Amino acid sequence: MRKKQIAIIGATGFTGSELVRILRYHPNAEISVITSESRKGELFSDVHPFFEGIADMTLDSVENIGEYDIDLAFLALPHGVSMNFASLFHEQNIPVVDLSGDFRLSSPEVYKEWYGKEHTWQDGFSHATYGIPELFRENVHGSRLVANPGCYPTSVILGAAPLLREGMADGSRIIADSKSGVTGAGVKSKPVNHFSSVNDNFKAYGISNHRHSIEIQEKMDEISGKQNSVQFTPHLLPVDRGILSTIYLQPADDQMNIKKLSDLYADYYAKEPFIRLLKASPSIKAVRGTNFCDIYTTFDERTGNIIVVSAIDNLVKGAAGQAVQNMNLMFNWEETAGLQQIPLSP
Amino acid sequence: MRKKQIAIIGATGFTGSELVRILRYHPNAEISVITSESRKGELFSDVHPFFEGIADMTLDSVENIGEYDIDLAFLALPHGVSMNFASLFHEQNIPVVDLSGDFRLSSPEVYKEWYGKEHTWQDGFSHATYGIPELFRENVHGSRLVANPGCYPTSVILGAAPLLREGMADGSRIIADSKSGVTGAGVKSKPVNHFSSVNDNFKAYGISNHRHSIEIQEKMDEISGKQNSVQFTPHLLPVDRGILSTIYLQPADDQMNIKKLSDLYADYYAKEPFIRLLKASPSIKAVRGTNFCDIYTTFDERTGNIIVVSAIDNLVKGAAGQAVQNMNLMFNWEETAGLQQIPLSP
Amino acid sequence: MRKKQIAIIGATGFTGSELVRILRYHPNAEISVITSESRKGELFSDVHPFFEGIADMTLDSVENIGEYDIDLAFLALPHGVSMNFASLFHEQNIPVVDLSGDFRLSSPEVYKEWYGKEHTWQDGFSHATYGIPELFRENVHGSRLVANPGCYPTSVILGAAPLLREGMADGSRIIADSKSGVTGAGVKSKPVNHFSSVNDNFKAYGISNHRHSIEIQEKMDEISGKQNSVQFTPHLLPVDRGILSTIYLQPADDQMNIKKLSDLYADYYAKEPFIRLLKASPSIKAVRGTNFCDIYTTFDERTGNIIVVSAIDNLVKGAAGQAVQNMNLMFNWEETAGLQQIPLSP
Amino acid sequence: MRKKQIAIIGATGFTGSELVRILRYHPNAEISVITSESRKGELFSDVHPFFEGIADMTLDSVENIGEYDIDLAFLALPHGVSMNFASLFHEQNIPVVDLSGDFRLSSPEVYKEWYGKEHTWQDGFSHATYGIPELFRENVHGSRLVANPGCYPTSVILGAAPLLREGMADGSRIIADSKSGVTGAGVKSKPVNHFSSVNDNFKAYGISNHRHSIEIQEKMDEISGKQNSVQFTPHLLPVDRGILSTIYLQPADDQMNIKKLSDLYADYYAKEPFIRLLKASPSIKAVRGTNFCDIYTTFDERTGNIIVVSAIDNLVKGAAGQAVQNMNLMFNWEETAGLQQIPLSP
Repeated sequence: MRKKQIAIIGATGFTGSELVRILRYHPNAEISVITSESRKGELFSDVHPFFEGIADMTLDSVENIGEYDIDLAFLALPHGVSMNFASLFHEQNIPVVDLSGDFRLSSPEVYKEWYGKEHTWQDGFSHATYGIPELFRENVHGSRLVANPGCYPTSVILGAAPLLREGMADGSRIIADSKSGVTGAGVKSKPVNHFSSVNDNFKAYGISNHRHSIEIQEKMDEISGKQNSVQFTPHLLPVDRGILSTIYLQPADDQMNIKKLSDLYADYYAKEPFIRLLKASPSIKAVRGTNFCDIYTTFDERTGNIIVVSAIDNLVKGAAGQAVQNMNLMFNWEETAGLQQIPLSP
Repeated sequence: MRKKQIAIIGATGFTGSELVRILRYHPNAEISVITSESRKGELFSDVHPFFEGIADMTLDSVENIGEYDIDLAFLALPHGVSMNFASLFHEQNIPVVDLSGDFRLSSPEVYKEWYGKEHTWQDGFSHATYGIPELFRENVHGSRLVANPGCYPTSVILGAAPLLREGMADGSRIIADSKSGVTGAGVKSKPVNHFSSVNDNFKAYGISNHRHSIEIQEKMDEISGKQNSVQFTPHLLPVDRGILSTIYLQPADDQMNIKKLSDLYADYYAKEPFIRLLKASPSIKAVRGTNFCDIYTTFDERTGNIIVVSAIDNLVKGAAGQAVQNMNLMFNWEETAGLQQIPLSP
Repeated sequence: MRKKQIAIIGATGFTGSELVRILRYHPNAEISVITSESRKGELFSDVHPFFEGIADMTLDSVENIGEYDIDLAFLALPHGVSMNFASLFHEQNIPVVDLSGDFRLSSPEVYKEWYGKEHTWQDGFSHATYGIPELFRENVHGSRLVANPGCYPTSVILGAAPLLREGMADGSRIIADSKSGVTGAGVKSKPVNHFSSVNDNFKAYGISNHRHSIEIQEKMDEISGKQNSVQFTPHLLPVDRGILSTIYLQPADDQMNIKKLSDLYADYYAKEPFIRLLKASPSIKAVRGTNFCDIYTTFDERTGNIIVVSAIDNLVKGAAGQAVQNMNLMFNWEETAGLQQIPLSP
Repeated sequence: MRKKQIAIIGATGFTGSELVRILRYHPNAEISVITSESRKGELFSDVHPFFEGIADMTLDSVENIGEYDIDLAFLALPHGVSMNFASLFHEQNIPVVDLSGDFRLSSPEVYKEWYGKEHTWQDGFSHATYGIPELFRENVHGSRLVANPGCYPTSVILGAAPLLREGMADGSRIIADSKSGVTGAGVKSKPVNHFSSVNDNFKAYGISNHRHSIEIQEKMDEISGKQNSVQFTPHLLPVDRGILSTIYLQPADDQMNIKKLSDLYADYYAKEPFIRLLKASPSIKAVRGTNFCDIYTTFDERTGNIIVVSAIDNLVKGAAGQAVQNMNLMFNWEETAGLQQIPLSP
């Protein structure tokens, strides 16, 4: 059977190369074209030399996209740029998974408030589906424009969802303390990702105003069906990949205990191939290169707090892997197709 | 003038070598003897080769301590061992700074509950002073047995103290999310500190039951004069040194704002040589090798949370540096004597 | 068709877990049993938690190996232990790939000299084939006991082989300066692999007496058909995986130039799926997780030296990957079967 | 006594901040002015925030240098820029230590060949002294323009000098395989120093054409009084600081042995405060933050090679520390003044 033909729009970033890593041996899909405006005419393996002998196709300009018979496009572009191409592909009736932040929020107004710019395809919001399959699987199934979630939101929302959906957490003061590897800040060289800025170092950033705050907040409200308050603080780890989120919630009533908490998660995620419930804290290296989200939960009797720790690879479950998982759903394929990588550890 | 003669009891660990690093050029003190039972007879620089040509003294057994005319002893020993030597030196009227956890808590009972063993010198508690100079300076001045604080507690308590002491935080649900370098886990080789367990990795541990939880809790109660609830979660960073704590508190009333918060800290720490109040998140590399505690505070109008981020070098302000600062106070010296190291960055 | 049934003898080390990572999705082989004496009865994923949900089989004792219908055994054991099991499986007519150093050298006498112990199965040497497929493919085809090469030797020998075999290098003073990640030193916790010994650090070790010196020397002599002198110096990198070897040779005559050198390698390795010839220095991250050996060659007109730089993943091409490549040859399968991993970068 | 007034020309790079770290507590010198054209008017601690509370002086333009009464200037500028300021200060009769490569080579012609640009102050070469104090102490004493050596050359030349000066090495094929931390590549953000390019990675670069090749070659020729051939290969380590060089030489005759080699170095460096001769390989962490050069030597009877391993901190003995050591000599001060930092380890 003819494999579905895939376009990857945007080749130079980390999500672009991760998409190629995952799609290169996908059983049902094949990469038809990769575009790059800044590097067109060069080989993909010129841009990412570790792909030499593996993916040596020539990069094309997106202007020539009409020459390819595309079944689905992944947009691996910066926010603010992505919206234009989403609109373009939508008009051509080509399904899109957008890895940028352009369609994750609830409206153009909220977008403008947090991203600081006018949205150029405001109608897009009515078409877009927020793509965390574990929570919104049915929506993704029929969607033709999936807003692939942010890396931090994926880790925080998957960590808290069972409690929120079942009404077992009091959402009035949720704390999400997250720590991410450097690839989350992109491939472009800048002082903040100079080796000597990051190595042996650790710090917080974007305190109280990171854009993922509102993404987390809105989805938590949607999942719980009520208004929550979420304090989200990102930190920068001296590692390439991985996000670990430590989430603090209060139980909705005084009946909470460890067993109840643990059963809730076991039930909720019972059939999920990418969720692993652990008996101790997850670690980012144990999910490296994979689409897993590892979760640990506990309840502290002394303080009355629920603590949830979740770990993902920000480039896989937090970006390219989840994007492929969404594609699998859109095409009614096995959800794990192409996504059975084993963690690279050590 | 004759310099004060110092004994360092315990040579092989990280705090032992840090004490030597700091005391080696102290203007008023000199190292008279370093003891080690496992390595006695060897040179200090055999145990720590980077000290070759800098500190080549022969390690002695603590049994021979009587042969030295000691003015003060630092105990760089594991908890459970330290208490015996504290008692011994106390009987001989030699002032002690104990870097272990043996005298930090309020009573032998609490000690037993959290450290899982009977305390062998229960009277010691009545002599011991908890040595964070910025908060308990007067107590340290006259003390002959200083319990040098834990590394995590130093970072968390200094971060929250102004709010607690001035009654400006509601202590009913404080979250302290802390991240530490590997040296906090000691010099002994074990799977948890194998390079391949730590490198590229990050995880939580000791969730809801780490011993520093109670140390933080008790001191916060003492500082605020009331009962608080503190959720403390430690995490392991792939770096050698440094602790960064992100602390979430709620204001005691609805009058809080960023200016008020910032003024509070500026006033409270106005004369402190080792506290630096920053305009952005601290980073652990900016305090590396020094006795600084860097602090950032903010108030999130959207959520109503106060967020404090503090950073220390766990081996300096979190151990050997604070120990020397305590010694300086005990001898009425300039508090910064021997402690003017400049951060090694990068 | 029934897949070949594979036994992995030794589960706790890094090579054991890498074998599982590679064999888990091998098209023609499946893991029948994994043994461990120290952890028998536990799950493989108890020992290596990142395999949870991927490889949860129970570890058995090697004593029970008779209960399994085994087609081939990988020995992932320390040297000195491996020889005993090699003998055992050989008697039972089960083909063996031995990842230890027990059968790599030319004789029991040389073994004793460099490994410091008597060899317990001296006849084994006559059965053993040294398994670098690119150089000894025909031998491996018919072999029933493959001595899987050392990690350093793989990188150095593949780097120098074309020059040696074609007689284009003067072998009288070859310098091989190699740098390896920490996993080469094994999983057992010891001071040398404590995170704080390795992080931010770099040093040489085993200068002039590392066991791989003789392995390299003997194979170079065999390949070139004459006596060479090789100076091998290993160094320890603050990374988990990867070996980069910088090899200095002198041309056999004064006709050498860059073009000639480059053509030689291009011809020699023209059909090799795992050799990539690069136009700039290889880097270890570009081969991470894969069976590639990346090679760069140049000739310095000013000094008259040939410089070859090669890079491998010490756990894959330097151990488990090459072992599977050898297995593929032994069973006449596609040599790349199960070995098409894409580098994990970043 | 009035301290000597020091100007640091160039504030934003790593050598600029290292100079401040070392000079801040120098007993005989004090920083009078630090200049920066790109950041003038800002505080030094705005550029390097870890200096907050330690060095908060305002950066001035070099145009205003006449307003300061300067006794010596350190030029912490890029090559090609530095020469102009060297000339300027020389005219004003102010002694200069130039940390760039502009006056290290033997002539403007050689400079042009290796640095690819015309030298604008060709007379400067006749005034310049190459400042490795251990080898050229007398020259430095009377100099008013010291060319502070390159980081790689410092490590390689100090490693090989005793053999070369005493005629005990055959210089016809010296191999210097060097490995450096990232700070050697400067503070400016570029793809090569993006965290994800360096972390977990290792590679060679500048093979056969790095500018330090000629610097090493020329000085070795000068030291030995004859023509040598040196093959120099730099590599990039995933650490901030440190250079380790592994140097391979052949003895001049067949009388070499380990004892003779070891005695040679012990004699040659007997009175050097910054040279430490070790019994095992040096490591870069053991010299971190210090002006030490640690050296190990051995002779391999099997191969006939001499192997020397040397380690320095590239920013200290390889740059700012050696610059201060040169200043100390120029002013006839204790050579170790201001340079007694203890290695920061771990």
